[in-house]
Amino acid sequence: MIYLDNSATTRPDPSVLHSFQQVSEHFFANPSSIHPFGGEAEKLLQRSKEQAAELLQVQPDEMIFTAGGTEGNNLAVKGIALEHRNRGSHIITTEVEHPSVHEAFHGLERLGFTVTYLPVDAQGVVSTDDVQDAITDDTILISVMHVNNEIGSVQPVKQIGEVAKQYPKLFFHVDNVQGVGKVPLDLAESGIDLCTISGHKLHGLKGTGLLYVKNGTTLFPLFHGGGQEKSFRSGTENVAGAVSLVKALRLTIERREVGIRHMSQLQAQLRDKLYTMEDVLVNTPEQKAAPHIMNISIPGLKPEVLIHMLGEKGIYVSTKSACSSKREDESKILAACGYGRDRSTSALRVSFSYDTTEDEINTFFQELKEAIGRFKAVME
Amino acid sequence: MIYLDNSATTRPDPSVLHSFQQVSEHFFANPSSIHPFGGEAEKLLQRSKEQAAELLQVQPDEMIFTAGGTEGNNLAVKGIALEHRNRGSHIITTEVEHPSVHEAFHGLERLGFTVTYLPVDAQGVVSTDDVQDAITDDTILISVMHVNNEIGSVQPVKQIGEVAKQYPKLFFHVDNVQGVGKVPLDLAESGIDLCTISGHKLHGLKGTGLLYVKNGTTLFPLFHGGGQEKSFRSGTENVAGAVSLVKALRLTIERREVGIRHMSQLQAQLRDKLYTMEDVLVNTPEQKAAPHIMNISIPGLKPEVLIHMLGEKGIYVSTKSACSSKREDESKILAACGYGRDRSTSALRVSFSYDTTEDEINTFFQELKEAIGRFKAVME
Repeated sequence: MIYLDNSATTRPDPSVLHSFQQVSEHFFANPSSIHPFGGEAEKLLQRSKEQAAELLQVQPDEMIFTAGGTEGNNLAVKGIALEHRNRGSHIITTEVEHPSVHEAFHGLERLGFTVTYLPVDAQGVVSTDDVQDAITDDTILISVMHVNNEIGSVQPVKQIGEVAKQYPKLFFHVDNVQGVGKVPLDLAESGIDLCTISGHKLHGLKGTGLLYVKNGTTLFPLFHGGGQEKSFRSGTENVAGAVSLVKALRLTIERREVGIRHMSQLQAQLRDKLYTMEDVLVNTPEQKAAPHIMNISIPGLKPEVLIHMLGEKGIYVSTKSACSSKREDESKILAACGYGRDRSTSALRVSFSYDTTEDEINTFFQELKEAIGRFKAVME
Repeated sequence: MIYLDNSATTRPDPSVLHSFQQVSEHFFANPSSIHPFGGEAEKLLQRSKEQAAELLQVQPDEMIFTAGGTEGNNLAVKGIALEHRNRGSHIITTEVEHPSVHEAFHGLERLGFTVTYLPVDAQGVVSTDDVQDAITDDTILISVMHVNNEIGSVQPVKQIGEVAKQYPKLFFHVDNVQGVGKVPLDLAESGIDLCTISGHKLHGLKGTGLLYVKNGTTLFPLFHGGGQEKSFRSGTENVAGAVSLVKALRLTIERREVGIRHMSQLQAQLRDKLYTMEDVLVNTPEQKAAPHIMNISIPGLKPEVLIHMLGEKGIYVSTKSACSSKREDESKILAACGYGRDRSTSALRVSFSYDTTEDEINTFFQELKEAIGRFKAVME
């Protein structure tokens, strides 16, 4: 198997899975139970928060464990909007967010909020000036992703954070699901109030995630209840999930520097090869892109056909994002970049991990070339 | 270790944990990915739904996988209220719900909904007539738990369902987190539109749960996004969690008949012993109670002290529910039953599993007696 769908999900690291299993087996008590067995579980949870905070260089009580990226994005966006609705009802985002942000904004429109969806340039990047210009007295939230999940564009979140800092009434949320381990981001110094991380995108387990909530920020909970996680996210804590997530995060950050360099090289090599193919258009920008994604279009060729042909060879890539893949044939992201339907409906996404090898990329490229050739032969 | 805190959480069944591990390792693809590896994950997920539906005698597309009981309760309560707010703004619940329902109703009050909190009798049971009388033209939701998490009272959900059926405009939600495997409930025939199940209360894993959503019922999602789970609960599906939960559910239902009989015997034996102790007041009603909970009060004795003393012997019990245990000293449930502060602030909850033995109960009783004796000796 050549797995090149790491932006959809990653293979869980065996040691991460092992940690989950150990904690589930030996520390299964409810951390809220006041007997000593519950106390042990609570200590583990607290230690996980401390480790996560150290890795992200923030405070332990700014770490809220969630069930994943979609929850984190929804909790941040809806949590701010509903909690601070008396301050204002205007919220800002971009046209290229992941569905979990985009649809959450749509949902808030149904509840009476007004949304500005900012455009992006041909590289899929939003303009900081546009963000600044969109802010009104009524604005309470800006949500901009760090790394785009389809084409890998990196947004100027640091600069947007500088703008946000000038408006103490509003909160700034960053969806960093695709950025962790790929493009370093300084949380504490970037004017960011909330930041979403997902476990299964970094060799952790599905059902695990983390939301950074800067101290002083309050949220309307999606889950009311027993008051766990500073009352922002009630429910019996998934201690095994938390421990496993923090382990995945640690392994990622330890390998990050080497991993980024490695993936950048693979990306550059693949780009050079793809440039030699006249049927292939490269959508991932040369500048301002994360190193793990290569998005291409082959106009006139249905991506499902290619995915099927590559799948038969044990090579797994995707169309668009997994979260949008079954809905429409057009990539909203590529449309927002200004590409026509021939290009926005024929996209393939190849995504690497630190463990992707040059051989795998070469094999993928050869098989892609062959598949396109076979397809064209049939069509002629 | 004598673990008698099974209402707070249970020991994961080794085979459940094994299933989780196997799926995480071998079927880690994103079920939304359209390559064959994603297809395998999707098939597993679909099979899990079919199995869950068969076990609960409902339809596969009525099964929504969640991250647990608190999520299920919040999704049901807020999902109905927000989705159907144009139909009406009145919602009904009881004074003895779990915090994840109770606080969700409080949260909805902040968003403009009007709530009726129905009282209970001395057994902790709500009156069906009271439910009927509370319904107005503006009512869109009734939420009543099946089995109370502190004292084990069983609510007349079937009768309330009969009432609810007469009002097609409103939805009926049942929190069945404490009822599964303890008190059988026919979902399809009870007039229930939504029903919450939690994995970790039935030897499944934390972070897993199931919400029954009767076909035809629509919800405002807590998690907007990629449209998974009929768009009621977006986010990459935790396939391993789903498979493990359904396994736990299957094992529970297979053992249910014998397990209920066994726990009922233990409960009766323990009750008889406790009746011999003049310091102990039994709060769990003799009739209309689930078989796995025994709630008692020892007025004048702080339950934390007893829990500590028993904990030193490796015996784990709780005060109230784990989800409320760190907040106030009074049990809201016992207060709602009409008990005074001496009784509502001195409660211990003992909760069994199918695997709890008579020996364990005898040891617990002996140690409880000794602890109370030691405590009284010190105080005299």
